[in-house]
Amino acid sequence: MIKIVLLGAGNLAYHLTKCLLNKNDLEVVQVYNRSLEKINYLKSKTAITNNLLALKEADIYIIAISDNAIFELSKKLILKNKLVVHTSGGVDMKELHSISNKGVFYPLQTFSKDKDIDFLKVPICIEASNKKDLDLLENLAKSISNNVYNINSEQRKSLHVSAVFVNNFVNHLYAIGNEICAKNNIPFEILLPIIKETAKKIETLSPFEAQTGPAKRNDSITIAEHLAILNNKQQEIYTLLTKSIQETYGKKL
Amino acid sequence: MIKIVLLGAGNLAYHLTKCLLNKNDLEVVQVYNRSLEKINYLKSKTAITNNLLALKEADIYIIAISDNAIFELSKKLILKNKLVVHTSGGVDMKELHSISNKGVFYPLQTFSKDKDIDFLKVPICIEASNKKDLDLLENLAKSISNNVYNINSEQRKSLHVSAVFVNNFVNHLYAIGNEICAKNNIPFEILLPIIKETAKKIETLSPFEAQTGPAKRNDSITIAEHLAILNNKQQEIYTLLTKSIQETYGKKL
Repeated sequence: MIKIVLLGAGNLAYHLTKCLLNKNDLEVVQVYNRSLEKINYLKSKTAITNNLLALKEADIYIIAISDNAIFELSKKLILKNKLVVHTSGGVDMKELHSISNKGVFYPLQTFSKDKDIDFLKVPICIEASNKKDLDLLENLAKSISNNVYNINSEQRKSLHVSAVFVNNFVNHLYAIGNEICAKNNIPFEILLPIIKETAKKIETLSPFEAQTGPAKRNDSITIAEHLAILNNKQQEIYTLLTKSIQETYGKKL
Repeated sequence: MIKIVLLGAGNLAYHLTKCLLNKNDLEVVQVYNRSLEKINYLKSKTAITNNLLALKEADIYIIAISDNAIFELSKKLILKNKLVVHTSGGVDMKELHSISNKGVFYPLQTFSKDKDIDFLKVPICIEASNKKDLDLLENLAKSISNNVYNINSEQRKSLHVSAVFVNNFVNHLYAIGNEICAKNNIPFEILLPIIKETAKKIETLSPFEAQTGPAKRNDSITIAEHLAILNNKQQEIYTLLTKSIQETYGKKL
């Protein structure tokens, strides 16, 4: 039985707490948050606190808070010989700097409060400063997910940038598609099947092979027609991504 | 029974022919292609030809060829009082210029030869120059798909640009994610669950609401760290999309 204290109440903390509470081989002994109000709903399921000096004994302390608060919080923790991990893709393990046994437990997924997540399919990227802690983290990760990876801090940073491209930036392109549809009284739902298929295609083809469209075909007439109906911001993005695709496939604008 | 002649042998033509041949209420009476070799595999299922003057009688002639060849091919067709449609998102209906009864039958999906498509879920955007032809096209569209939309040429052009953003450009961002992973010996498969979830999220949230990440949070430290590990091309795209997200949510770099 792995005993866990979870610190935080954001989107990831919310879903992770929910998931951990449901596992028989894990015990969430306490949840900490700066404001008790946000974790009050957990009162019937585990101990809650807003006092860092009142943290309970546990095997793993999981800091699931925003990136820029990790360093400050970790400085305040007085935990000797206890494994403390953060859950961030963008933060180096070393930022847990006053902690002797440190690690990272990074679930690579996008979390919204209102949308349930099946953790079994969430890739968990783990890192620790020694073999014993890594084994413990691996046990924890494998008890909630089927996809566990050993990823060091440098790799994790690259992975995090990649995720910005394939998640945050992709979503912004969806938003631009939505914007263009709305302006022309076209229901955005028409685009949902192609969005789904585009994401699915790369399960069997590499994105390099899956590329299609006017930029790849070097179809300058269509590209000019498209640019003519876009606003400035959209034109700038269209032009840059078209150029990048053309360069990737060895053609020039 | 709607009789159809299909012209073309590209990815869309391939999948559309296959789909139409399987419907009991439709009859593919002939498939035309410039080169017979590419449609030879259809010989046992329907008549094939490479001679535009030998086209059979049908109710609808579907031109499923590349955008820039539609105009030239339509000029060569000698079909009086027959409905002729093209299947392109980017081409105006008027480009079928010597045709009296013209229309558009645009399946909004990405087609790869090696990947099967369930047409029932493919949105079909139809347009015709008169009510009778529109009804005929609607019958055809509804016999293969559950999602049929009346979309005029101007709207279709906007839809096509939107599709470039949410499909072609999105796939290019996947390719960049893949590139970054490969360079750092990270298996790209780690990103597949977040890619899928990002595409799925907007079925219940608008892309505007679904936005997350350092740009939205205005997290300048993470943004700087990300830029530091990207190459020039990646930096340019990262910077522009970050700026665009920040402007969308009312923040400045």
